[in-house]
Amino acid sequence: MPEPISFRGQLPALANKTYFNYGGQGPLPEASLEAIVAAWRQIQQLGPFTGDVWPYLERISAELRQRLGRWCGVAPQRLAFTENVTSGCVLPLWGLPWRAGDQLLIGDCEHPGVVAACRELARREGLELSELAVGDLRGCETTAATAVLERLEAALTPRTKLVVLSHLLWNTGQVMPIAAVAEALRQHCSQAWLLVDGAQSLGSLPLAEAGSANAAAAADIYACTGHKWCCGPEGLGVVVVSERLLAEAQPTLIGWRSLSQESSGNSGFHGDARRFEVATSCLPLAAGLNRSLQLLEAEGSAQARLERIRQLSGQLWQGLQLIPGAKTLLEVMPPAGLVSFTLEAPQQRRRSNSNLGGQELEEVPTPEMLLGPEAIVTALGRQGIWLRSLADPHCLRACTHICTEEAEIERLLEALAQIG
Amino acid sequence: MPEPISFRGQLPALANKTYFNYGGQGPLPEASLEAIVAAWRQIQQLGPFTGDVWPYLERISAELRQRLGRWCGVAPQRLAFTENVTSGCVLPLWGLPWRAGDQLLIGDCEHPGVVAACRELARREGLELSELAVGDLRGCETTAATAVLERLEAALTPRTKLVVLSHLLWNTGQVMPIAAVAEALRQHCSQAWLLVDGAQSLGSLPLAEAGSANAAAAADIYACTGHKWCCGPEGLGVVVVSERLLAEAQPTLIGWRSLSQESSGNSGFHGDARRFEVATSCLPLAAGLNRSLQLLEAEGSAQARLERIRQLSGQLWQGLQLIPGAKTLLEVMPPAGLVSFTLEAPQQRRRSNSNLGGQELEEVPTPEMLLGPEAIVTALGRQGIWLRSLADPHCLRACTHICTEEAEIERLLEALAQIG
Repeated sequence: MPEPISFRGQLPALANKTYFNYGGQGPLPEASLEAIVAAWRQIQQLGPFTGDVWPYLERISAELRQRLGRWCGVAPQRLAFTENVTSGCVLPLWGLPWRAGDQLLIGDCEHPGVVAACRELARREGLELSELAVGDLRGCETTAATAVLERLEAALTPRTKLVVLSHLLWNTGQVMPIAAVAEALRQHCSQAWLLVDGAQSLGSLPLAEAGSANAAAAADIYACTGHKWCCGPEGLGVVVVSERLLAEAQPTLIGWRSLSQESSGNSGFHGDARRFEVATSCLPLAAGLNRSLQLLEAEGSAQARLERIRQLSGQLWQGLQLIPGAKTLLEVMPPAGLVSFTLEAPQQRRRSNSNLGGQELEEVPTPEMLLGPEAIVTALGRQGIWLRSLADPHCLRACTHICTEEAEIERLLEALAQIG
Repeated sequence: MPEPISFRGQLPALANKTYFNYGGQGPLPEASLEAIVAAWRQIQQLGPFTGDVWPYLERISAELRQRLGRWCGVAPQRLAFTENVTSGCVLPLWGLPWRAGDQLLIGDCEHPGVVAACRELARREGLELSELAVGDLRGCETTAATAVLERLEAALTPRTKLVVLSHLLWNTGQVMPIAAVAEALRQHCSQAWLLVDGAQSLGSLPLAEAGSANAAAAADIYACTGHKWCCGPEGLGVVVVSERLLAEAQPTLIGWRSLSQESSGNSGFHGDARRFEVATSCLPLAAGLNRSLQLLEAEGSAQARLERIRQLSGQLWQGLQLIPGAKTLLEVMPPAGLVSFTLEAPQQRRRSNSNLGGQELEEVPTPEMLLGPEAIVTALGRQGIWLRSLADPHCLRACTHICTEEAEIERLLEALAQIG
């Protein structure tokens, strides 16, 4: 009997490179691409716009909504499909009942897209922005959680109307105590909404398995994408919204999918999260994401997968401690798969390999003499090793997923040691 | 030498059915699906998130933007990609400089999604909605154009801030004189914006070839989709925005793709139409749409393709005049590929084919005794003939495209004659 194909064996993207950008985009399994193509062929066979095709499209959509509901530990009625995580974050925001003077409290590690959207919302509605510092919390998860809650409670005012925080910070790799933040808001600031960017968490951190600490169930808006840790196709995400938000927020980007009676412009909106869906989207992508999630499920429970991810990110974190000039942003082993670090890499080392040779290495290189993160990314890319740079904090980030191999981490560490 | 595969031969959806729903969704050519899959494989080969993949993704995106710019007869900088036509219509609207009391003038044949979005915009910003009757204009295009302009000028007030009109009305199939409407607004109501739903026009009506009468160039917002007359994949559209709109409208659904410096939340927006793009979308779809547009180009100029479409819709329109009980909405041959009609189809005819038989046919059936458009769609679907029903006006709609065959039209006419 032939051996079953491993998860990694399903990922053509990993066949020719050493890949650490799962937080940017996950590799697409061959089986998921096949599921997408099969869906397209079936749509052409039955449709594309016929009475025969509607039940098939509804089945693809419902199957994914139910599966994602299980992953998120919420009823499928709380899930709306979106094109990406930004849409999921931003769209429900515009229809909340804002009043001039309301305050938005935004974590200082949020993604530029979400920050820019909040700035524009504030400009238009006359709201105030303030920042919640969390990027400096580089210690263990528990200590960080305590600090987040203390700082949050100190920052809340009667005018605070929204708190924006990522579940897993995309730059430092720290986990935020989302369920505890939600509970603190309920107790001290019940008018405030909680928006959580889950770009790095779905497919990486357990949600449903966290029980009463389930971040997706606790937030008012919990926005995710399928194309990072879930290894689904780009262009499909999901947002989980709370019952309170469903009761109080109106949709803004409205199309026939938002309407309870899609043939009437006088129709009301769906009572469930579909009110935040818009119009035609690419349903074959849903078949692909569904297949990717099935493949991940076959690799173990969400908790088991996180343990594997942490084992690998821990190996990388520990290896970095041994490289002179390397400094991890987190002072402890990472709570998930994001490993951010800086590396003092003298330019001279690179020059000495070039025709410019002959310069003496300085004892203590000044910042101008160091290779920046962007140059390091390029240099490693030439060796087929891919990680990314971040602008703020200015650093490098490498991610480990369940398909990462120990040997890949060693290869990265060796290459970094050579540069450093 | 083997004969080249015809355009129709490229469309698996048409192999097993008689299809008239191009205005709902066009069939996807096999070559376009292959282009999508090839793009995905290339992304996995080079990326998915690496320095090697960015130039490839930029090339796919730029090639389609340039091609669509040529189709629309505008500079590519005026084009933003969207997920669907609704997003293209609605998103630029929310960031226009509204004042309470502004008036929106909306054609009475607009799509429910756009109407519902305008209603919500009006509710939130304190605007007034009024309706411009165009659905009753069933005569020739020139007469209709004159009437539209007369009614428009009578309806404009100093408070009119937006006019919403489709280029090709999705229900009656009438063409609206968009460039003339834009000119009338410039002369009599220069503060007003012109939003045009181009869902039925891109790939059906010539835009660039219309020269000074180019509707896409004349409107402030001209929203299109790739998945109808262009026969591209579902989930990708484009909106053309005016220079004036770029200067005065802020984006609302903001993500990293809206920002001129994508790594900073303090960044300004792109000066060009990319400010209305959001975040990650499915770029392989762009490769597919680009391929579909190439295939259409190979079938002749936009004008030549429209002539073929009209020849076929004319055949259908004329055939309908000969069926007792059938009545086309348009009193003249259609200006494009949409043929809407009603059919008086007595239920008895259907019953006599069932086990209920034995009832006498009434001489003049009352409305309750007629099959509704939905039942007719179902009955024809059982024969593998697909058209659709519309709610308002309550009717049937069949579309012809360049891949329609005369024999298919005869088959539809025969089936309708049997029902009617």
